Amino acid sequence: MTKYSIGVDYGTLSGRALLLNCETGEEVCSAVYEYPHAVMDDTLPSGKKLGHDWALQDAKDYLDVLAHTIPQVLKESGVDPSDVIGVGTDFTACTLIPTKADGTPLSFLPEYRDEPHAYVKLWKHHAAQDKANQLNAIAAERGEQWLANYGGKISSEWAIPKIWQVLDEAPEIYAAADRFIEAADWIIWQLTGVESRNSCTAGYKEIWNKNTGYPSSSFFAALDPRLADVVDEKLSRDILPLGNKAGEITPEAAKLTGLLPGTAVAVGNVDAHVCVPAVGIDGPGKMLAIMGTSTCHMLMGTKEVQVPGMCGVTEDGILPGFLGYEAGQSCVGDHFAWFVDNCLPASYVDEAKAAGVNIHSYLRTKAEAKRPGQSGLLALDWWNGNRSVLVDVDLTGLMLGMTLQTKPEEIYRALIEATAYGTRMIIENYREHGVPVEEFYASGGISQKDPMTMQIYADVLNMPIKIAGSAQGPALGSAIFGAVAAGKTRGGYETIFEGARTAGSVKETVYRPIPANADIYDRLFAEYRVLHDYFGRGENNVMKRLKDLKQEVHSHA
Amino acid sequence: MTKYSIGVDYGTLSGRALLLNCETGEEVCSAVYEYPHAVMDDTLPSGKKLGHDWALQDAKDYLDVLAHTIPQVLKESGVDPSDVIGVGTDFTACTLIPTKADGTPLSFLPEYRDEPHAYVKLWKHHAAQDKANQLNAIAAERGEQWLANYGGKISSEWAIPKIWQVLDEAPEIYAAADRFIEAADWIIWQLTGVESRNSCTAGYKEIWNKNTGYPSSSFFAALDPRLADVVDEKLSRDILPLGNKAGEITPEAAKLTGLLPGTAVAVGNVDAHVCVPAVGIDGPGKMLAIMGTSTCHMLMGTKEVQVPGMCGVTEDGILPGFLGYEAGQSCVGDHFAWFVDNCLPASYVDEAKAAGVNIHSYLRTKAEAKRPGQSGLLALDWWNGNRSVLVDVDLTGLMLGMTLQTKPEEIYRALIEATAYGTRMIIENYREHGVPVEEFYASGGISQKDPMTMQIYADVLNMPIKIAGSAQGPALGSAIFGAVAAGKTRGGYETIFEGARTAGSVKETVYRPIPANADIYDRLFAEYRVLHDYFGRGENNVMKRLKDLKQEVHSHA
Repeated sequence: MTKYSIGVDYGTLSGRALLLNCETGEEVCSAVYEYPHAVMDDTLPSGKKLGHDWALQDAKDYLDVLAHTIPQVLKESGVDPSDVIGVGTDFTACTLIPTKADGTPLSFLPEYRDEPHAYVKLWKHHAAQDKANQLNAIAAERGEQWLANYGGKISSEWAIPKIWQVLDEAPEIYAAADRFIEAADWIIWQLTGVESRNSCTAGYKEIWNKNTGYPSSSFFAALDPRLADVVDEKLSRDILPLGNKAGEITPEAAKLTGLLPGTAVAVGNVDAHVCVPAVGIDGPGKMLAIMGTSTCHMLMGTKEVQVPGMCGVTEDGILPGFLGYEAGQSCVGDHFAWFVDNCLPASYVDEAKAAGVNIHSYLRTKAEAKRPGQSGLLALDWWNGNRSVLVDVDLTGLMLGMTLQTKPEEIYRALIEATAYGTRMIIENYREHGVPVEEFYASGGISQKDPMTMQIYADVLNMPIKIAGSAQGPALGSAIFGAVAAGKTRGGYETIFEGARTAGSVKETVYRPIPANADIYDRLFAEYRVLHDYFGRGENNVMKRLKDLKQEVHSHA
Repeated sequence: MTKYSIGVDYGTLSGRALLLNCETGEEVCSAVYEYPHAVMDDTLPSGKKLGHDWALQDAKDYLDVLAHTIPQVLKESGVDPSDVIGVGTDFTACTLIPTKADGTPLSFLPEYRDEPHAYVKLWKHHAAQDKANQLNAIAAERGEQWLANYGGKISSEWAIPKIWQVLDEAPEIYAAADRFIEAADWIIWQLTGVESRNSCTAGYKEIWNKNTGYPSSSFFAALDPRLADVVDEKLSRDILPLGNKAGEITPEAAKLTGLLPGTAVAVGNVDAHVCVPAVGIDGPGKMLAIMGTSTCHMLMGTKEVQVPGMCGVTEDGILPGFLGYEAGQSCVGDHFAWFVDNCLPASYVDEAKAAGVNIHSYLRTKAEAKRPGQSGLLALDWWNGNRSVLVDVDLTGLMLGMTLQTKPEEIYRALIEATAYGTRMIIENYREHGVPVEEFYASGGISQKDPMTMQIYADVLNMPIKIAGSAQGPALGSAIFGAVAAGKTRGGYETIFEGARTAGSVKETVYRPIPANADIYDRLFAEYRVLHDYFGRGENNVMKRLKDLKQEVHSHA
């Protein structure tokens, strides 16, 4: 009898369920539900104003995803719930919820309904930057060893700055919160009735390490004496590796989803990380780039190395038994969108209209006609700072080589090339620190829809690029983890590696480097690297000084 | 009885006559005549194809300017020709004509009518670049002392490379040409019947120096043995200082123009240089910037200093008795035009249309609303290379500081600011080499039409900027020189200095630096200077390497 698994992927604006045939690895069907509250970055539902850089969500929306999408895939497929053996989930991270001891989000309680700090802090809540800066300064001053595991800097998006912001700005909410928990783990709690914590978010977002645990109580006390026992009071030292089973569907969750009580539920996971088995990666040396508005690079290694400038290294952080390395580029698709919004001349829009073609394909056709090196342009892809390998949000963009003959499509192409050089910097940085990168996979929107960009990447990296077989990588990856949680005897997979081999896939199309292009891009990358180091490593901090001046001018407005 | 003088300004596409009231300094009227042959950069009138980078003119058009415009201003003003005491002229330079011994252009002769090298080589004929490169290499190797008077490089636009190109490509034309003469001097020959050469073009364009004369015969022989005696065979060692009288209108010229025979004619002159008295400048330390698609900077000093990176220093080269210094920025208005053509988004064009305003004013209003330093952007204004102070056509543009919030008007403003920093580099370079710059004047289209840019310049230079009173600076300046040629006793001026004080003028509006802006621009200029030196003085030659690669890619196309 064929068995099925369900993966539920929680994105920034919606949740998606996918039904996987465990035997064939086929995606049977999927369903999407958009969060009614979307991202609250301006006001609460009551109209109460939020501060600058806030981004909240309502945890109720996450439950509604379960209630809508799982019944829908069951109905659409006609699959009997008794043939669904497992459920896996993935979430954005660090997306953090303050709850009572029973898992009830504070924002569900009437007395906190109008209190911003009671809500889910979404990954892109950036209002704790001040706390992150203080934390980094204190950690550096104390010589905290774990700091190097995060490329030398903790992001304002991560858990401790967010928790500290709550304590600082709303101590009564901090006191009322029995737990601070990743949404990735909270949803598992709702499905299984048991609180659990996964090694992925704990490692990457909560500064936990499999061998050394959390930072010391004295470090937390140095931030604020009231934080001294934050781990024992609000978090947990009980961390489950990915690929494990977290528990089983409770009767309440069964009512919500239409699944049977007892269905296996996988340990919580993160959207980027679950994509790895979805493309069939089952071991070290194979980098997966999830390319969208920004890019996330997942890579596994066999030993823990402190590679400067990555987002983190976590044992069991991607697949069990390996060191999971994560790096990132803060702005990839966003670059191209910026160009289209701000730099595309009216004449091109008119010409595209006259030719009856979409402006994006019009631009693309022109850019595609250019050969590497032909424009004479070179850019640093830092329009939104540099995440890896410089970990510096204060860096800004650069372009050089313009002449009076420079055309918009050349600028556009130079921006694409710059993001490819940025990826190559990350790869070379790993290699130089002894973490091999031997294969390259891509998933995410750009990998699916943009052959020109993928060819440029293949040429710049001088590596063949395999493309994710599924356009719904995270939901597929979660379903694979669900089938692993169910286990072989129930019709699932013995291990995540078997799951990756069975259900993970790449397309037939492989982007292969064109040697002549790769040679030219080698030379251009050498130039990129010199500029990268000159502007990014302190030799000329003009970008930071200009940003300071900008702040100064704004504050005197 | 009021006396009048006529100035004739020969531009790139047309000639303009202006009638000046010598007593009041008032511009009575003017008339324009467009060259029927305009610029021939593709074919001869016969349809014969020209090479890449060629730019020719037909000398007949210059005579037609006289025949049309002078009678027209006489008619329109009702001034009696007997009250016109002098004529002055100015020309583009180096615009070079091969002629017979009697001044007849070779292209007037039927046998050469279809021979490209027989025509006028316009200033922007760039097909002698190869010759200029060879000349510079040979001069440098021989340690020619005069090279430093030209910032270390002779331009392909100047006389010797152009003459050498004729010799090399059409030796029979070189042999047939009894003279090679600047159009500035040729037109005087036509008016007076006598060949003369002026100190301005001789000094700036023909490598002549008042004290040391031309380069040696052995230098010319090193270029090509056939050039050994080029000066004595084809040019002249008899050079007249500016402000002198060259001769008087001949009966033939009287017939052509409607002026009386015997009317005084000033020594030939150059369009930028005649603007100096037109704004009332009569001595050293006062820089005039003629701001259009490119900018030309005129400055006088009291001693000859070899300032690196200027276009030339020539005794009597601007006004008699002073050292005339010339510098330039190869691309100013052209930058802004490039931006408007290539970077102005369709949404702005639509918004301007909806608001019923011109797109340029729409953009300007947005750019004007920005405060110095607010955009965080900084650019190097090298879209067309750098003339002064780096004398390097292979440099290219740079912009940095972009973020995802960067708007088109900020990029536009950063380009304007970059050209202002370029001007400040030129001024500081003079000052650092002991040539004082105490006042700043501007003429040309931008000075008349673009208050935002002029205010930015005042703030960046931290100097008040006086604006030319006349929109027809060259024609006015020429008329002043015409009145000087006539002399005081005939109702003109004793000296060019008296003429400058009487007829030169600036507007009442003076752009004064705003101290708060000047402070910020001081900081931005310091950043500009670091980048200028890093990319422009060899520390990182990435721009040149990218240009080489571009060439390489093109040549493999």
